[in-house]
Amino acid sequence: MGESGAYRRLPVAERRRQLLVAALDLFSHRPPEQVSIDDIASAAGASRPLVYRYFPGGRQQIYEAALRSAAEQLTACFTEPPAGTPTQRLRNALDRYLAFVADHDAGFSALVRGGCVTETSRTTAIIDEVRRAAAEQVFVHLGVPAPGLMLRMAVRSWIAAVETVSLIWLDEGRQPPADQLRDWLIDHFVAVLTATAAGDPQSSEVLSGFLAAVEGQPRSVR
Amino acid sequence: MGESGAYRRLPVAERRRQLLVAALDLFSHRPPEQVSIDDIASAAGASRPLVYRYFPGGRQQIYEAALRSAAEQLTACFTEPPAGTPTQRLRNALDRYLAFVADHDAGFSALVRGGCVTETSRTTAIIDEVRRAAAEQVFVHLGVPAPGLMLRMAVRSWIAAVETVSLIWLDEGRQPPADQLRDWLIDHFVAVLTATAAGDPQSSEVLSGFLAAVEGQPRSVR
Repeated sequence: MGESGAYRRLPVAERRRQLLVAALDLFSHRPPEQVSIDDIASAAGASRPLVYRYFPGGRQQIYEAALRSAAEQLTACFTEPPAGTPTQRLRNALDRYLAFVADHDAGFSALVRGGCVTETSRTTAIIDEVRRAAAEQVFVHLGVPAPGLMLRMAVRSWIAAVETVSLIWLDEGRQPPADQLRDWLIDHFVAVLTATAAGDPQSSEVLSGFLAAVEGQPRSVR
Repeated sequence: MGESGAYRRLPVAERRRQLLVAALDLFSHRPPEQVSIDDIASAAGASRPLVYRYFPGGRQQIYEAALRSAAEQLTACFTEPPAGTPTQRLRNALDRYLAFVADHDAGFSALVRGGCVTETSRTTAIIDEVRRAAAEQVFVHLGVPAPGLMLRMAVRSWIAAVETVSLIWLDEGRQPPADQLRDWLIDHFVAVLTATAAGDPQSSEVLSGFLAAVEGQPRSVR
């Protein structure tokens, strides 16, 4: 298959982006081992040699680039302006997160489940970075610049819970409905924070601020 | 290196077990990519050809066999006689689990973190089987033969939380002390169950039984 003249005229960055969008769409709905370079070329309306020109490392390289782009989108889901109550912010972020999970179902499962052929220490590092960014956002909105050990354990364990529950949600045909799952995840967050507050002064302070704001008194939680 | 006559006289199963014990010990304390066949042979007092005779697939095969043996040990940690309150049983199981994590620190981290060279869909399946077995044990002790979706989400998310927290615990030089972490994990479990009980009748029933037994009235929770 030759390239048409039109392809050649696309700027490099634009062409690369177009290939990545096509790849991410394919990787979102199939396990990575079921996506070939030919599939990507065909989805992008490009030739196989063109794909290799942009991604000489083949499927592994394009998978990692698509993963990086998905990780950026996912991290953007967590970014919420510091307005409204903490619960409202958590609700908005979870709504965006669950929409992302639903949009990238097979790819999300393959990625989080691990063990796929394209998994390397680099891809694991990208996913870990997303988890860290999610925790970071939670601390920002809780107004905690220096979270102690127990608060970090509470937040990181909740993030792991969200991830695991998302996989079950996909497996179960997206049941319960997204808004119900989101509300349960918020209750789950408050419950873990409450359990932690019993023995940890910092978590207790954070919880008080969180609950005060929930009760209709939005304020800077610190 | 030749084998001594003594080696040859060991029965096959016994020799295989001895190689596996040596391998598991090495894989427990280093990332798998830092364990060579020579290391395993030397730790077992055996020759390299002998290791290959038992494990013709080399490091990957011996790693998977060691992982299977570790998975059996870990699954055994969760097995608790149906005596005492649910909290006591959970406490016993968590004590054994945390002791296992402490004994297999580097290997546990590498395994759960993923992305290591020896990770395949087979190793991922072994780890997933352990998670499923852990959830299964929780349901047995809660007296729930047919857990519904929300209760499964609650228990699986708690197991994911335990796993994540174990990694942080290892990273943080095993702080907080194991008994404190174990008590927090029990509170965490009750908190998640409580959050779930609000909207799920089955979880609510399980929680009532759990709390009644905690309050010094051990009974069959059903």
